[in-house]
Amino acid sequence: MAKDVGILAIDIYFPPTFVQQEALEAHDGASKGKYTIGLGQDCMAFCTEVEDVISMSLTVVTSLLEKYQIDPKQIGRLEVGSETVIDKSKSIKTFLMQIFEKCGNTDIEGVDSTNACYGGTAALFNCVNWVESSSWDGRYGLVVCTDSAVYAEGPARPTGGAAAIALLVGPDAPITFESKYRGSHMSHAYDFYKPNLASEYPVVDGKLSQTCYLMALDSCYKYLCSKYERIEGKQFSMSDADYFVFHSPYNKLVQKSFARLLYNDFLRNASSVDEVAKEKLGPFSTLSSDESYQSRDLEKVSQQVAKPLYDAKVQPTTLIPKQIGNTYTASLYSALASLIHSKHTKLAGKRVVLFSYGSGLTATMFSLKLNEGQNPFSLSNIATVMNVAAKLKSRTEFPPEKFVKVLKVNEHRYGAKDFVTSKDISLLASGTYYLTEVDSMYRRFYAQKVAEKSRCDNGSLTNGQ
Amino acid sequence: MAKDVGILAIDIYFPPTFVQQEALEAHDGASKGKYTIGLGQDCMAFCTEVEDVISMSLTVVTSLLEKYQIDPKQIGRLEVGSETVIDKSKSIKTFLMQIFEKCGNTDIEGVDSTNACYGGTAALFNCVNWVESSSWDGRYGLVVCTDSAVYAEGPARPTGGAAAIALLVGPDAPITFESKYRGSHMSHAYDFYKPNLASEYPVVDGKLSQTCYLMALDSCYKYLCSKYERIEGKQFSMSDADYFVFHSPYNKLVQKSFARLLYNDFLRNASSVDEVAKEKLGPFSTLSSDESYQSRDLEKVSQQVAKPLYDAKVQPTTLIPKQIGNTYTASLYSALASLIHSKHTKLAGKRVVLFSYGSGLTATMFSLKLNEGQNPFSLSNIATVMNVAAKLKSRTEFPPEKFVKVLKVNEHRYGAKDFVTSKDISLLASGTYYLTEVDSMYRRFYAQKVAEKSRCDNGSLTNGQ
Repeated sequence: MAKDVGILAIDIYFPPTFVQQEALEAHDGASKGKYTIGLGQDCMAFCTEVEDVISMSLTVVTSLLEKYQIDPKQIGRLEVGSETVIDKSKSIKTFLMQIFEKCGNTDIEGVDSTNACYGGTAALFNCVNWVESSSWDGRYGLVVCTDSAVYAEGPARPTGGAAAIALLVGPDAPITFESKYRGSHMSHAYDFYKPNLASEYPVVDGKLSQTCYLMALDSCYKYLCSKYERIEGKQFSMSDADYFVFHSPYNKLVQKSFARLLYNDFLRNASSVDEVAKEKLGPFSTLSSDESYQSRDLEKVSQQVAKPLYDAKVQPTTLIPKQIGNTYTASLYSALASLIHSKHTKLAGKRVVLFSYGSGLTATMFSLKLNEGQNPFSLSNIATVMNVAAKLKSRTEFPPEKFVKVLKVNEHRYGAKDFVTSKDISLLASGTYYLTEVDSMYRRFYAQKVAEKSRCDNGSLTNGQ
Repeated sequence: MAKDVGILAIDIYFPPTFVQQEALEAHDGASKGKYTIGLGQDCMAFCTEVEDVISMSLTVVTSLLEKYQIDPKQIGRLEVGSETVIDKSKSIKTFLMQIFEKCGNTDIEGVDSTNACYGGTAALFNCVNWVESSSWDGRYGLVVCTDSAVYAEGPARPTGGAAAIALLVGPDAPITFESKYRGSHMSHAYDFYKPNLASEYPVVDGKLSQTCYLMALDSCYKYLCSKYERIEGKQFSMSDADYFVFHSPYNKLVQKSFARLLYNDFLRNASSVDEVAKEKLGPFSTLSSDESYQSRDLEKVSQQVAKPLYDAKVQPTTLIPKQIGNTYTASLYSALASLIHSKHTKLAGKRVVLFSYGSGLTATMFSLKLNEGQNPFSLSNIATVMNVAAKLKSRTEFPPEKFVKVLKVNEHRYGAKDFVTSKDISLLASGTYYLTEVDSMYRRFYAQKVAEKSRCDNGSLTNGQ
């Protein structure tokens, strides 16, 4: 069996267009700090009419292959996690095949995985399992998480975002799976769903979704701890992981989640909870589960108690989600990317525990072990390739009025046919794919903004037959 | 690593309501034989307003667990293949969690896999890989293929169908994967897709889809042969497999596909093609690929030449697809179920080659090895449990007028909210789940038709939170 299977390489793409949460607060007539402190968000990325989940995934896959110098023929499996449905039958993966077909590689397994924000994690697990299975043919797996999160006008609108992340999977990786330390919690819930098929917007019960998230977190942590304890013969606590990476719809929920883990450790009488913390949490030891999810006091006290640990174990994972917003399937991996961006030289030997959540609901907590790796598959090279600081810096801010106009255009275009886009690519970086046209048969056409250095290469993608 | 991983158990469910293709021909004013001989179909199953892909999958999973006496706690992975979208975010898998939650099992990995009719195969491969991976926790995997295929009025309407199939996956199986003999062909095509999000009906180019199917078949067969030859050091031909099982949208395409494989063997100068066949196919040896897909003469001659082999290697796989129609993700496995139904006592030691196709497009040809197995996981018990003959016999025929009315009702109900169904379950067998209501928040409610013997058990499913 292949050894040390995991993530070899990462690239991230997000649109170069964003809105400031502070400006959006004012525009929406929300109280000052409602989005920036209440949600804990700084900015929100969004697709203009020339970008969508397909163009973003074409961009990030092309970029990853190029920057890590991977021959497209070396890819044996390609799968996509997304909850942004453009076609109900044809997978996003088949659009990405255009990149591989032109190199003569059509023997690539994998399709799209779907359940809300969890699809990317499902795709990643599938890819890792493939490399460990007897079906593996020695080539790389490639996982793409791509989503555009948009909400109808109202309280959920500031929790949108957009990004695509590509993860290369194979043996001898710098980011490996501790596959036995894993707990899932899956159940039937209606916290966030998309039953209105003609609309891009979800039906969402924000309060219920937060409770579902925290319940799933508790359950997954319980499973992970009990599996760890069965295998290692000792208790697991927060002290046993160096970093915690959460699915990050908005930063405030990440803060609450980490505090919730501390409360779990307190109830389990784990060594991670010191005497001062025990004393502060004492009054909450007899709450029922339901009461504990509703208690504002517990929320406040546990976050206060968890603050120093949060700063050490979670804060380094929060940059990108706070800057680009909720990116659904890409959210958890944009938090992981933030950690690598901010700490890459100090991560060798560290354990990172991740919590993936998708409404409806599906959730898994799992553990990764990091090592420096070898170029091009090293943590430091991943940080260099992702180039997060420069990408964030080169973005263009849209005032809220212009952002709302963009959303209106996209609303009308969603599910529509027979239109051409503005083809305005002035804000896109070289190499970015963009939507040019949807014809009368709903067929979608994309082109690539040609890089200065490779103008000879015709960037347009021909259509499937 | 777990050994002899594969399919341990199968159950199949299809609606008890069907229309005769012969009657539909007359109703549609089509020429006599257009659907029965031209398409090669006998009957078509369809869901009335009380059934859908969720109810069918609840029915088949409950039935499989009960009939093979599997404790729901023994399931560690559950995934669904489907292209019938009821919600764009919440997976069908989460609806199925209701069965497991009430037994206290929420630690079950897996979500939905999507790309047209291929999603079930993707889910099956994922499940097998999981059992072979380091993440396997010793429990069973369960794969569900569920689809309702309906088409707008017109030439594609008789190619509908409906069914759900459940496949239990684990080690020491009677149906094991020869995982190294596998070839995939995936590319970007618009042969059949569902871009009109508000409609249940696809956009389909029948002629293009057939050519895509045959091109993918050629490509997958080429890959499978070359992999076999690299490993075994000898040529692979049709003689090396006892049965060929095809994705079966309509039987005529299955006949054409098998003949196409023979034509491939002829071009490869394989031992499976005798002198008489060589002589008959001789005139077609210089056709270009494109010409060969268009040539009616080649189609006719190759089918004629292949007829005796078709009767032996394919005909035993055709019963259910001809009786219930195209069931998308369930189609290939309903053909496999037909083989086990008709030949179960004679299958030990046999090799079965399967071809899975999903428009858009994704396709894989793969190989299974069969052994009798041990009860309850034996081929003969699978045949007994599936009880195909009795299920087909107990169905109720609807005249075309009534069938069209049902489709009209379903058309209005698709994506709708705030309605109750007729709750008319007179035609459903005991144990069948059915849709009772979709509330004003689009939440769906199902109940189970209580079996005479277990009236004490309240069959209704409570809703997720």
